[in-house]
Amino acid sequence: MNYWIIAYIMGWVLNFEGAFLLLPAVTAFVYGEKEGFAFLICSLISFAAGGLIVLKKPSNKRFYAREGFVICSMTWIVISLVGAIPFVITGVLPNYIDALFEIVSGFTTTGSSVITDLTPVPHCVLLWRSFSHWIGGMGVLVFILAVLPLFGGVDMHLMRAESPGPSVGKLVPNVKKTASYLYKIYLGMTVVQFVILLLSGMNLFDSICITFGTAGTGGFGIHNDSCLGYTMPQQTIIAVFMLLFGINFNVYFLLVRKKVKEIFNIEEVKWYLIIVFGAVTAIVLNWGRLDNLYYSIHHAFFSVASVITTTGYGTVDFNLWPMFSKFVLVMIMFIGACAGSTGGGMKVSRILIYVKTVKKEIEGMIHQKSIKVLKMDGKIVEHSVIRNANVYLVSYLMIMAVSLLIVALDNFDFETSFTAVAATFNNIGPGLGKVGPTGNFSEFSNLSKLVLTFDMLAGRLEIFPMLLLFSRATWSRK
Amino acid sequence: MNYWIIAYIMGWVLNFEGAFLLLPAVTAFVYGEKEGFAFLICSLISFAAGGLIVLKKPSNKRFYAREGFVICSMTWIVISLVGAIPFVITGVLPNYIDALFEIVSGFTTTGSSVITDLTPVPHCVLLWRSFSHWIGGMGVLVFILAVLPLFGGVDMHLMRAESPGPSVGKLVPNVKKTASYLYKIYLGMTVVQFVILLLSGMNLFDSICITFGTAGTGGFGIHNDSCLGYTMPQQTIIAVFMLLFGINFNVYFLLVRKKVKEIFNIEEVKWYLIIVFGAVTAIVLNWGRLDNLYYSIHHAFFSVASVITTTGYGTVDFNLWPMFSKFVLVMIMFIGACAGSTGGGMKVSRILIYVKTVKKEIEGMIHQKSIKVLKMDGKIVEHSVIRNANVYLVSYLMIMAVSLLIVALDNFDFETSFTAVAATFNNIGPGLGKVGPTGNFSEFSNLSKLVLTFDMLAGRLEIFPMLLLFSRATWSRK
Repeated sequence: MNYWIIAYIMGWVLNFEGAFLLLPAVTAFVYGEKEGFAFLICSLISFAAGGLIVLKKPSNKRFYAREGFVICSMTWIVISLVGAIPFVITGVLPNYIDALFEIVSGFTTTGSSVITDLTPVPHCVLLWRSFSHWIGGMGVLVFILAVLPLFGGVDMHLMRAESPGPSVGKLVPNVKKTASYLYKIYLGMTVVQFVILLLSGMNLFDSICITFGTAGTGGFGIHNDSCLGYTMPQQTIIAVFMLLFGINFNVYFLLVRKKVKEIFNIEEVKWYLIIVFGAVTAIVLNWGRLDNLYYSIHHAFFSVASVITTTGYGTVDFNLWPMFSKFVLVMIMFIGACAGSTGGGMKVSRILIYVKTVKKEIEGMIHQKSIKVLKMDGKIVEHSVIRNANVYLVSYLMIMAVSLLIVALDNFDFETSFTAVAATFNNIGPGLGKVGPTGNFSEFSNLSKLVLTFDMLAGRLEIFPMLLLFSRATWSRK
Repeated sequence: MNYWIIAYIMGWVLNFEGAFLLLPAVTAFVYGEKEGFAFLICSLISFAAGGLIVLKKPSNKRFYAREGFVICSMTWIVISLVGAIPFVITGVLPNYIDALFEIVSGFTTTGSSVITDLTPVPHCVLLWRSFSHWIGGMGVLVFILAVLPLFGGVDMHLMRAESPGPSVGKLVPNVKKTASYLYKIYLGMTVVQFVILLLSGMNLFDSICITFGTAGTGGFGIHNDSCLGYTMPQQTIIAVFMLLFGINFNVYFLLVRKKVKEIFNIEEVKWYLIIVFGAVTAIVLNWGRLDNLYYSIHHAFFSVASVITTTGYGTVDFNLWPMFSKFVLVMIMFIGACAGSTGGGMKVSRILIYVKTVKKEIEGMIHQKSIKVLKMDGKIVEHSVIRNANVYLVSYLMIMAVSLLIVALDNFDFETSFTAVAATFNNIGPGLGKVGPTGNFSEFSNLSKLVLTFDMLAGRLEIFPMLLLFSRATWSRK
């Protein structure tokens, strides 16, 4: 293991975090909040530590996959450990474990909260929560790749470790350029949503925070009733942008390049939209009220968009829906958004691979001599991608099982325990039962909170970088 | 598709069912119950239909995998359709869908019941329920293979389609002999348990029925309180035999052949016992009462043995246990017993394959050049077995998801809906909530009952034979 290069990149991570922390500090200054000092102090410490570390450039440039994975998981752990401090200093969450849960929930764009009442929380803290969604949405390392001049070999390993989805699609051959394109698209769409929300009459602060939360598909609300207080047109804007940020960013790249034809070849996006349509229809038929169809469609659409993109904003308490509608939401919780988007979950493309392997296997059972290949978007899916998707599924279920057992020690009901794990692991935010849209995660024990924190990180990083931390092979001298 | 041969074997299936139905008829005669006529009539009809069909021997002996799968699923469907009729005629379950649910639950050794009160149910019906466990436990086709002279090629395809577990282990090269050995071991162990129960002071009827239910890992009780009324030594006998019938039958074959050394090489059995020990320990620590440790260990052991072998007998209402203990039970519900046993679930060997693929993949990520093979019991596991296990997992989850959605339409709580599907699909019997040890499945709608019936069959036949029925390729002329 090349520890020097890991330390070096951690130094840069700290520098960037120092810069990020200035935004809430400025916010505090604008609103005259004394809590801004917490962010200023953290920012300075971050800069100091980061600045010192990056002074020593690593001479050993050996960089393999395991360094990539370790850097990826360490990056997310470091930004979270530091990012949690302001919550403690400002007194919003005096327990550091609570603070860690909250900021990991932010960076991983989960949106599960342990804050029971948002009313007394100062603006700077609210902004930091929402901003963490935006930072985590596209990925910290992708950001670093886009702006830092790193030596060859490093970039692809990092990109692969942090990018969501079964296979890494580079937009252009150069990783640095890909990362930079991704961030430009991300920033551009963020600005568009922000402006539209402003035009719709939402105030400046809400527009900023809600846009951050939508873009990262995070879902931290800034009011206790999440998005219930906004007008229906505003809610619709949010819902549409949630869906847009859940689409594979390749689509926008192709759009910019005016390759519209290729977009229609992307099976994942097609199925993503079909699933959304199907889920909304199913919920409207099951829960909807005929005397107020518009109301039903509106809230079903918002909830489905919020859950499948793993954002987690709410306009209605879907915990009160009939069980069928709740199970529809649980299903799309697991399915998640598209690969290469800011959304979480298993990703639609993985589900497609799974369905196709079943189809292929069944056909193979009947016509035993037929050797079929698995195709996606007209291209052959490599065996290693399929194998990885299968191993992902197994790891996914094992982490889910272990987490469930530990969280069950708190002795909450089945629905609460199950969906608490599902909602954090898939980076959604709210679950059902006690952790439904009107509830929160504050009642869980510290142990459960740590487990759920791990799940959020494992979910965001697609399991393997976190799992590798526990493998002896990663740390062996060989 | 070779329809003639399918019909021919269905004819034999009906003949055998005619014979099986004589046992409850005799029972009715012994107890002087007029309900015996229902069984006698069904038996005669079965014989008549079967006898007519087998008159015409199929000239076309073309027999491929798809014929094997279709015969397998059709066999189970046919015996269930016929076996359900006595429930309707005797008036125990006037609704045919209820009757079908009950007998499929019997043949698949699930043990979920829709009968709300067993007190007024006549002996012949109780015996038929328990006997169906015994018939289904080792498999109807395995029985046919053991006694019928079938032409070459047919046997292996049938064996493969019906045997539980990721790969078919033939005990001896000859399929017919393997089937016959299996049934001899099965019968032998059944007799041993029956005699021990008799010696323990249990009455004749209970001893027969409970032994049938244990041997098939079925779990239909003949009293409303399942096994609560038996003495603790009797309960221990039942628990030990449940565990024994959940062990891979290869072990007993090796034991008979005095190859004791080879038994210790079987990883699956080792892990099966470790899981049982771990689950009992976890439950005792969580639920157990220090002031009555013996009581706690006794009932924890019985419940774990009952659930992991997917039998479903109860001595205690584990629905009242704390959530952690309940989740331990849910986990072992999914794990299930050993391959090649009469138990259900995913099977311990599949779980082992899954864990090993994850380990292998993680090592491969770090040392990218290392090509590792996956070994089990010291032998290399073939790629096709791994692929099949993965596809099984995906199909498993998909059927689970669709079933959950449909069952949720009945609007029961999350725990009830989830465990109703889990308990039927894994062929356990009782779940949690309303379908816990003291509850039953009678409140579900007809639609849900049909879905759960399908799940029981899919679970028993390890999914693919049932899935293939819905594939166009199966029925195409090619």
